[in-house]
Amino acid sequence: MTTGNNKEPNELKNVNEVFGDPNDEAAIRMLEDKFASAVNAGDIDAIMKNYIPDNTLVVFDVVPRKKYSGADTYRQNWEDFFSHFNGNPKIAITDLSITVNGNIGFSHSIQHVTGTDKEGHSVHRTVRVTDGYRKIGGNWLIVLEHVSVPVDLRTGKAVFSPEP
Amino acid sequence: MTTGNNKEPNELKNVNEVFGDPNDEAAIRMLEDKFASAVNAGDIDAIMKNYIPDNTLVVFDVVPRKKYSGADTYRQNWEDFFSHFNGNPKIAITDLSITVNGNIGFSHSIQHVTGTDKEGHSVHRTVRVTDGYRKIGGNWLIVLEHVSVPVDLRTGKAVFSPEP
Repeated sequence: MTTGNNKEPNELKNVNEVFGDPNDEAAIRMLEDKFASAVNAGDIDAIMKNYIPDNTLVVFDVVPRKKYSGADTYRQNWEDFFSHFNGNPKIAITDLSITVNGNIGFSHSIQHVTGTDKEGHSVHRTVRVTDGYRKIGGNWLIVLEHVSVPVDLRTGKAVFSPEP
Repeated sequence: MTTGNNKEPNELKNVNEVFGDPNDEAAIRMLEDKFASAVNAGDIDAIMKNYIPDNTLVVFDVVPRKKYSGADTYRQNWEDFFSHFNGNPKIAITDLSITVNGNIGFSHSIQHVTGTDKEGHSVHRTVRVTDGYRKIGGNWLIVLEHVSVPVDLRTGKAVFSPEP
């Protein structure tokens, strides 16, 4: 098995060139843009429009429980999320890389959340996000989301600003 | 937007019925079985055979850094993983749900790691895993992996045995 190659990874760019319909990749990128705009507007209805709106949605979130099933349940997480902030937190998506083929796709990205919590403390949180998508009736929707921060296993503590 | 439906979620079973080639779903399920067997055997070469063997592999792992790029880098994580155990830890994959279309797929699962660490303490760790796959030369490989535990944001502590 050959694994040797010290060049900077291409972050699936080549995969996309081989695989992806550029229109579908652009549509998924627009979905993620709409998602970020909705978070930045504090608009939970607009956030949820990017997810499959039924009970098949599966989310592994930063916070417990182990798994969230269904759009209604995940919507509550977004309500909880905003309730911890004074004013509106902001989100910025970077390093978005999309793989798409036919009617499904997946992506990974880094998302930066900044704001001020109810106690007046600054919040800076870097999360890793992977999404699974389906194209339904011509529209791409998130059907699987996994959001996390890494953990230092020696201390059991989350690492909110991890090294690259 | 209709989200109301209190029935137990089908964990994408319906999606698979509509979308998936049963042979491809079975092949991905076999890949995950081979992965678990390789972990249980402590065989890092066999573990790595389930991942794309080049620098396009992307992994968000339980532990920092933020992102691991490339098979060589991720292999080191597996070496670190085993180095913390006395004897060989065991892994069990449950709740595996696969979505596949054409030459790509994604899945989510819950994975349970048990063992004894170098200090003699029992380790019980429940992790959430999402994988992205590509079919290359007839073989399915993991090209994107995200492994995490949820975090209690009030304490900053990882939750290794979260509620369902």
